[in-house]
Amino acid sequence: MSEILFDRIALIGIGLIGSSIARDIQKLGLAREVVISTRSAETLKRAEELELGTAYTTSAADAVKDADLIIVSVPVGASEAVARQIAPHLKAGAIVTDVGSTKASVIAQMAPHMPENVHFIPGHPLAGTEKSGPDAGFSGLFKGRWCIFTPLPGTDRVALDRLSIFWKALGSMIDEMDPQHHDKVLAIVSHLPHIIAYNIVGTADDLEAVTESEVIKYSASGFRDFTRLAASDPTMWRDVCLHNKDAILEMLARFSEDLAYLQRAIRWGEGDKLFELFSRTRTIRRSIVQAGQDVDMPDFGRHTLDK
Amino acid sequence: MSEILFDRIALIGIGLIGSSIARDIQKLGLAREVVISTRSAETLKRAEELELGTAYTTSAADAVKDADLIIVSVPVGASEAVARQIAPHLKAGAIVTDVGSTKASVIAQMAPHMPENVHFIPGHPLAGTEKSGPDAGFSGLFKGRWCIFTPLPGTDRVALDRLSIFWKALGSMIDEMDPQHHDKVLAIVSHLPHIIAYNIVGTADDLEAVTESEVIKYSASGFRDFTRLAASDPTMWRDVCLHNKDAILEMLARFSEDLAYLQRAIRWGEGDKLFELFSRTRTIRRSIVQAGQDVDMPDFGRHTLDK
Repeated sequence: MSEILFDRIALIGIGLIGSSIARDIQKLGLAREVVISTRSAETLKRAEELELGTAYTTSAADAVKDADLIIVSVPVGASEAVARQIAPHLKAGAIVTDVGSTKASVIAQMAPHMPENVHFIPGHPLAGTEKSGPDAGFSGLFKGRWCIFTPLPGTDRVALDRLSIFWKALGSMIDEMDPQHHDKVLAIVSHLPHIIAYNIVGTADDLEAVTESEVIKYSASGFRDFTRLAASDPTMWRDVCLHNKDAILEMLARFSEDLAYLQRAIRWGEGDKLFELFSRTRTIRRSIVQAGQDVDMPDFGRHTLDK
Repeated sequence: MSEILFDRIALIGIGLIGSSIARDIQKLGLAREVVISTRSAETLKRAEELELGTAYTTSAADAVKDADLIIVSVPVGASEAVARQIAPHLKAGAIVTDVGSTKASVIAQMAPHMPENVHFIPGHPLAGTEKSGPDAGFSGLFKGRWCIFTPLPGTDRVALDRLSIFWKALGSMIDEMDPQHHDKVLAIVSHLPHIIAYNIVGTADDLEAVTESEVIKYSASGFRDFTRLAASDPTMWRDVCLHNKDAILEMLARFSEDLAYLQRAIRWGEGDKLFELFSRTRTIRRSIVQAGQDVDMPDFGRHTLDK
């Protein structure tokens, strides 16, 4: 068991991320009280059935009263509304953080509302699955994953350290970045892959010459890998697209440029250009596995799980 | 143990697919003799060290003598050369099949060389991993996977049945299609996903604003899913691109068109269009899991394997 890090933690939003945090807090005994808040009465009821906290309310304002740590885990488009609701009720000295996938936008939405006497530290744990909702969460989701803080100038280092200790207790590794750089990095490692996956699955769904049942039946030959990302939460990803627009459009432009080059090489039968690209990309996979950022098994180890 | 289905099987090519077939034949006792042939003396030596067959030769011509079943498992661009080499040495009544990912091109390359008295039955087992070479193969690779035949008009049903029984012994499910339709289906379920994966990994590799080490470090947030496909055998995939050009270019055009629509929706902040697409694609994942074509676990079950 770890020690108690915060007397009272308020979780605003109890989806995949919020509920995984709740499970870890409980399992590790990191807080005396965990107040759970979500707008939907139905989701809140489910969180209560799952016994994820010690108190439950649909009012974010009520939830944050007397809380020492407030973790906002909502679609990034809802950040400003949450900030407005909780701001007047925050305790002096409280730490407010979030888990949003875009940082410049979250800061623009939340920072103006935060009182001077609280520590607002934007954060982003790079963890998740394609599932969503309070039932999808599990203890251990953050183990071995990075949590990136994008602190504002003048952030109190003591508060930042306390928050780091919390995420480390959940098994995360900590990084710091400026928000703009975060948004560029995430645009390529996360946002573009999701958008491309959604797009290709959409393209396949629209074909006339190939039926949907054929796409499903033969999906193991590559396609199924994309369907996982394309099964992610639509609200979350709509908001990411709308709130990291510039970086995403830049990455999309580069991707399309490169694809045009590749397409041209296919049209003109330029095998050497294809071979060069296809060889270069292989080494990146190897580096990812070596860095411990993916399982070291062919086919993501699916064959192991099949048996 | 299964029964002996062929006295003598010749495997031309002993990479991931050929060596997996060899392992299954041995494990299941499906043949008395298995002659292994590959152009590279080094690869042949490795196949012998792994004891994958009963005889070994770098000459495809020698390998097929007296063979009842010949399975050609080479990059599709090498099909014609192999057909030329083996044609004069094939036994009357022998079955010649292949495992190539494109079918119209393989037929165009091989059929003209095949003697009248052998049964040429083009085939494609939809199985594989991102690894290649004789060490990458394993028994069970074809279990629960589809094997598609694209038989020529007038194909002998008895020969086709014998070949079906062989693949069923390896655990495959059998389908039949005409070659053109096969090539369209595979263009969307396999070729496009691989090309897109190669492309996005290439794009990430070329960025100046985001370093390669950042891409690797934070790859778990989506990107790593693409790196698996982009680690596939470069020679195989160069050949697929060159030998299924028309269908691939058609799918690429559709993909790019859809992506332009999505890009425009992002630029103009049309959240409803994004939400509609992101919701629609979610159901396809569900169907794939229900059809038993992927593991029913979040994140491909990686969290299970991590522990």
